[in-house]
Amino acid sequence: MRKIYFTPGPTELHPIVHEAIAQALKDDICSINHRSKEFVEIYRSTDKALRSLLNIPDDFVILFLGSATECMDRLVQNCVLKSSHHFVNGAFAERFHKTAIELGKDSTATTVEHGSGFDFSELPDMTNSEMICFTQNETSSGVATDLEKIYEVKEKYPEAIVVIDVVTSVPYIEPDFSKLDAAFFSVQKGFGMPAGLGVLIVNKRCIEKAKHLKEKGGSIGSYHNLLSLAEYAVKYQNTETPNVLAIYLLGKVSQHLLEYGKEKMRLETEAKAELLYSAIDSCANIQALVKKQDERSKTIIIAQAGDKQAEIKQRLLDSGYVVGSGYGKYKDSEIRIANFPMHRLEDVKNIAEVFSSTS
Amino acid sequence: MRKIYFTPGPTELHPIVHEAIAQALKDDICSINHRSKEFVEIYRSTDKALRSLLNIPDDFVILFLGSATECMDRLVQNCVLKSSHHFVNGAFAERFHKTAIELGKDSTATTVEHGSGFDFSELPDMTNSEMICFTQNETSSGVATDLEKIYEVKEKYPEAIVVIDVVTSVPYIEPDFSKLDAAFFSVQKGFGMPAGLGVLIVNKRCIEKAKHLKEKGGSIGSYHNLLSLAEYAVKYQNTETPNVLAIYLLGKVSQHLLEYGKEKMRLETEAKAELLYSAIDSCANIQALVKKQDERSKTIIIAQAGDKQAEIKQRLLDSGYVVGSGYGKYKDSEIRIANFPMHRLEDVKNIAEVFSSTS
Repeated sequence: MRKIYFTPGPTELHPIVHEAIAQALKDDICSINHRSKEFVEIYRSTDKALRSLLNIPDDFVILFLGSATECMDRLVQNCVLKSSHHFVNGAFAERFHKTAIELGKDSTATTVEHGSGFDFSELPDMTNSEMICFTQNETSSGVATDLEKIYEVKEKYPEAIVVIDVVTSVPYIEPDFSKLDAAFFSVQKGFGMPAGLGVLIVNKRCIEKAKHLKEKGGSIGSYHNLLSLAEYAVKYQNTETPNVLAIYLLGKVSQHLLEYGKEKMRLETEAKAELLYSAIDSCANIQALVKKQDERSKTIIIAQAGDKQAEIKQRLLDSGYVVGSGYGKYKDSEIRIANFPMHRLEDVKNIAEVFSSTS
Repeated sequence: MRKIYFTPGPTELHPIVHEAIAQALKDDICSINHRSKEFVEIYRSTDKALRSLLNIPDDFVILFLGSATECMDRLVQNCVLKSSHHFVNGAFAERFHKTAIELGKDSTATTVEHGSGFDFSELPDMTNSEMICFTQNETSSGVATDLEKIYEVKEKYPEAIVVIDVVTSVPYIEPDFSKLDAAFFSVQKGFGMPAGLGVLIVNKRCIEKAKHLKEKGGSIGSYHNLLSLAEYAVKYQNTETPNVLAIYLLGKVSQHLLEYGKEKMRLETEAKAELLYSAIDSCANIQALVKKQDERSKTIIIAQAGDKQAEIKQRLLDSGYVVGSGYGKYKDSEIRIANFPMHRLEDVKNIAEVFSSTS
């Protein structure tokens, strides 16, 4: 039986990826020079489609890195001299905070329990935080942070660089970039692509900050410092030979979603999420990890299945569905289900049915 | 007409890459979890095949990064506190030196003219160089540095970490790793794969150096520091979600070359190189850029074609062959021809014929 991956990422490939790879091979996309007009056209086309899909303004530049983890690394290296602040509600937010510490910064964190969101009525003093970091959709806990709350933090700390990790929330969410400074994601999640590309979207304030740090004599890194990356990006090129195939595929998937209709895709995502949460909520012995309705991620749905976990996972697998286990210490008790654009309503209905029929 | 790429990289895909990608898609390689047993098996299998192909000893660890440029960046960040020395005979060696400078090191360089090798009878004093860097096969100039000369440098400076950039010389060359500390390459050259993976091979001295730098309070980077990378690599995993497809393909290409016969592949490479250099040497108005026979790269062959360059490139293109232009300021006067395992003898004969018939 053909398996369908509902894992948080890597996940099921978007169906158009198969044909797009075949076309790329036919058109020698992997052999062309990364300084050629052909490559520039690919980068430009991907840039345009992604800008349109996520409504990215012209004063933001789109940079291609190796992974979302590299985006964290380069953001800290380029935008933080002394300290950043991290809102930590799971393993990926913690990774961002740890990155800052490992890069020698005196960074701070606001930490909440597994499955919880933040209390925005009690914000810490972030006056000295050069960068404020949110993992907008925490993949390990399925907690989504309301973008409006993040915009309010930006309003309160306009001098800080406010960054959102949207690894598992794009392309479902469309952030208001005018109220942010940077966002990043990787492509093996919502875009349904093979892993190996990180996308970092930054405004001029980030670039200016990198310039400032460099002028103060600090190192902002080498080939992947924001100044070099941005200098090449305006020419639709990379500093090094990038993952050309992935840049090509990202353009094709984005273009496809635009043609399909981004509003339609978003409404469908919400409908599928509603189905899954309803099914989980209807179970007697299983609960959604995230209790507060307004903190529940639409794209990463987590069930506390306890001793039913293995049985449910097996029943899903018997129907062809691969879902994720809980992250880290919740490996054997939680089930994580991704709900991305390539995941079809009829499959989600089948998954929901397995939960509903669990005694 | 189907084009065949003889460009230095990205270049023609190895023919088995097409079928390997098809198999990968069929087997859901891009959807599996990067902490799963399936992934561990892929990493282990690639590690094994590559070790066998390049004769990498057990006390070296194979790490997967984003590009060869990232390998330079991470090596400097992890193995150099104050200074490295760079043998610079072209743009890629210069990139390595520049990387060290950009990362705040007080690094030095021995520089020679375009198309020349180094005079090993007059070595600089490298007593204070923690890392000594050779671009063993300089892609911008087609100069190959004799591995024996590099081993002699290592013998003279046993305390230094000696690194070779073998981006365009593997899998043709098989370095003696017992006389080196690190080597790195990217896969879109001799391995004929899509770009997006850097391979860094390091011994324990590099890891120990990273540990030492960290203990002294310096930052060796975050998720891609050598300690974290090596810690995961022994479990056949990466610190982040890597380019899984590329790791899979590298294993398939390496396995194929092993079955084909590495000695046979190497002898063929030398025969094809001989054909190309002979044809270029036979031209009245065209010369090989590298004058000294023993400095001529077998895998990157460069012709100084002067005002014949555009004409020859066009004639080659008319026959279906895409070759590279000169690097940087030699863009309009030189022709760079790659000679990798996937490049067939009959095509090389056709290319040689175009040179031989140039008046």
